[in-house]
Amino acid sequence: MLRNRLIDAARRMKPILCGVQSLRSLSQGAPSKLTTIEVDDKSGIATLSMNQPPVNTLTMELMHDLIDSINQIESNRSRGLILTSSNDKVFSAGLDLNELLNPEVERFKLFWTRFQDLWLALHLCGIPTAAAINGHAPAAGCVLATACEYRVMLPDLSIGIHATRFSFVISKWMMHSYQSVLPRRIVERALNQGKLFATQEALEVGLVDEVSSSKEEALSKCAAFVATFDKANPLARSLTKRMCRDPDVRDLLKDRSADLKDCVDYVTSSHFQEGLCNHLKGLKNRK
Amino acid sequence: MLRNRLIDAARRMKPILCGVQSLRSLSQGAPSKLTTIEVDDKSGIATLSMNQPPVNTLTMELMHDLIDSINQIESNRSRGLILTSSNDKVFSAGLDLNELLNPEVERFKLFWTRFQDLWLALHLCGIPTAAAINGHAPAAGCVLATACEYRVMLPDLSIGIHATRFSFVISKWMMHSYQSVLPRRIVERALNQGKLFATQEALEVGLVDEVSSSKEEALSKCAAFVATFDKANPLARSLTKRMCRDPDVRDLLKDRSADLKDCVDYVTSSHFQEGLCNHLKGLKNRK
Amino acid sequence: MLRNRLIDAARRMKPILCGVQSLRSLSQGAPSKLTTIEVDDKSGIATLSMNQPPVNTLTMELMHDLIDSINQIESNRSRGLILTSSNDKVFSAGLDLNELLNPEVERFKLFWTRFQDLWLALHLCGIPTAAAINGHAPAAGCVLATACEYRVMLPDLSIGIHATRFSFVISKWMMHSYQSVLPRRIVERALNQGKLFATQEALEVGLVDEVSSSKEEALSKCAAFVATFDKANPLARSLTKRMCRDPDVRDLLKDRSADLKDCVDYVTSSHFQEGLCNHLKGLKNRK
Repeated sequence: MLRNRLIDAARRMKPILCGVQSLRSLSQGAPSKLTTIEVDDKSGIATLSMNQPPVNTLTMELMHDLIDSINQIESNRSRGLILTSSNDKVFSAGLDLNELLNPEVERFKLFWTRFQDLWLALHLCGIPTAAAINGHAPAAGCVLATACEYRVMLPDLSIGIHATRFSFVISKWMMHSYQSVLPRRIVERALNQGKLFATQEALEVGLVDEVSSSKEEALSKCAAFVATFDKANPLARSLTKRMCRDPDVRDLLKDRSADLKDCVDYVTSSHFQEGLCNHLKGLKNRK
Repeated sequence: MLRNRLIDAARRMKPILCGVQSLRSLSQGAPSKLTTIEVDDKSGIATLSMNQPPVNTLTMELMHDLIDSINQIESNRSRGLILTSSNDKVFSAGLDLNELLNPEVERFKLFWTRFQDLWLALHLCGIPTAAAINGHAPAAGCVLATACEYRVMLPDLSIGIHATRFSFVISKWMMHSYQSVLPRRIVERALNQGKLFATQEALEVGLVDEVSSSKEEALSKCAAFVATFDKANPLARSLTKRMCRDPDVRDLLKDRSADLKDCVDYVTSSHFQEGLCNHLKGLKNRK
Repeated sequence: MLRNRLIDAARRMKPILCGVQSLRSLSQGAPSKLTTIEVDDKSGIATLSMNQPPVNTLTMELMHDLIDSINQIESNRSRGLILTSSNDKVFSAGLDLNELLNPEVERFKLFWTRFQDLWLALHLCGIPTAAAINGHAPAAGCVLATACEYRVMLPDLSIGIHATRFSFVISKWMMHSYQSVLPRRIVERALNQGKLFATQEALEVGLVDEVSSSKEEALSKCAAFVATFDKANPLARSLTKRMCRDPDVRDLLKDRSADLKDCVDYVTSSHFQEGLCNHLKGLKNRK
């Protein structure tokens, strides 16, 4: 049941995730434009950098390139994947809120489906994953970090899913991503508050595993984490990770359109549009 | 799926919870007799006090008044609800065990249904909730405290679900209430032992969040907790809380009669009646 | 629903677990050969020792004797069960890997079913259980320890499920056994790494509850744990434990053949056989 279902599930998963690729033709093997991949020849670890100025907002294009890069790193049998940012102030600012403001429904459906794809690609990535969080990681930036297996963060930054602050209600799978890292009581309170954890707080509750003083050190700590799997058989490790994460993805994989419909209905409600509008005005006034 | 089901669920929930009100006519807006509500004009926070001498035993009447008060506070759009006791020695002594001793089945069904109603009303309350635990909180007293989102307790008190000590086997939803606050391993052990945690122990495991030296300070800490939600959109917060707590209530809402039947069968068994009888004799002898 | 289903489940469980006994005739009440039972007349606690030289490998026979001993202790209404080893270096070395190497399918099915039986017998044992871990507890040795309610360990030992190191993918119920003791994040990482925790690390994450300097002290700490249930009604305690552990065993009890089929398919795959072969060669070379 378990292990074979897992293998089957893994097989079935790929086409779902790769569907997005048809939208953009990719030069074979070449790094895509909004992400860069550097593979360390010695360790075999691939560092995947988000590289969309100014703040790595998760636009349709950046998400496309991230999914493509994750798939590429996974299929190249790299020893591990480290997610980081080319920008030393922001890891990722989260989803492009402009896609949520008065959205054209068909486009928004593509946008949300791509975010599902991105999370699934990272959360279920067959190789060891770690995040070197060298800048702020609010909202979907935090979701990407929690989809990794390990998190190293630089000081004086913030991380958390602050969706309630802009009237958004996250999907259940985003909650599962948080709960895979933090205890139930902490998750509920943080989600309800829309809490952004300072680096030190994040370390204390376990949202990040280590704090490092530089990006270089963060990358090196992430590489040390990847090396902790050296004695594990890679396929057995991959199937075991899949078993542990199966409860997080089960509902979404069983019925992706349900999450999509629900999200469309909520995002197009006047309640949310008003809340988002006020939030965006507040951000503008602060500038 | 999620968010809309939540809104639907919230709509459907109300009539279930309010069904109980038909049993007693209430003067509009007036505080009921066994509970008092004080709203702080400045903060908008409502303090709900249990006020049934001598030890706030959860009788049919006190539970009725609590449900009514919770609904009233929620529909008045208060900024938060703080549950406390007028009695400085006992927060609540738990369910009225006389209702469990040789019960008349139809009355016991009403009693247990009301306890389900009370827990649902508090656990799913749409506004922020906190408990200022200014006296002992055994058994159902602890269940009420865990249904809140935050707990502040005074020193040298005890809290815990000690049901196994009087031969009772709690319902799964009471276990979920405990597990929403404490880790699985701690919950199993405490339930099996019938453990009552001293204030300091409760703080260490996370069953309470803060200790305060006076009731006044406890109320003020609870108010500070309610204020942590100031930046969150209230409806988004409410739907997010509902999503987090959905796994706790799902089984009960799906089939309330199953829990009721199971409880009636157990409570009317000779095994339980003997155990309860011995427990009550023990309590009498101690006096 | 709950409590009565529990009683029913408990009734139904016995024949499943006892099926194994027909394979070997047992002299009534006599201790079986590979395990010994010592009952303390004063405390009423039974100490069950694994006694198969050299390292308490879980062979078909040792598992048979363990199941039989657990059932015997449970039906004799002992006050508690302490699991330990006669061997001061190894608690249990885990499953007999020879049964996994090029297995004859029908025999392997018996072997795996017996391991299921053993875990169910210990995990659902009606009386309080504790493990005095006086030697290394890798793989299935750790699973036995986590099936108990309390763990006391001697210094400078190792414990953990290191299955990925020999290419094995554990069953979901073994993961549940781990998750009943440790937080989700710790479990996933440890399983993926095939991590063996040193005594002190195991204490820090909560995999063991106490460290003791001698086997005698470990047994005495386990006895003190059993005594923490003195105020609980034994049947109510047993049903409450069963309710807490129901999510762990539900899938397995619903369809034991699914887990069996899945395990057979995986163990007989060339991928696993190669991985196991390499692991066994590595062990030989180290000697």
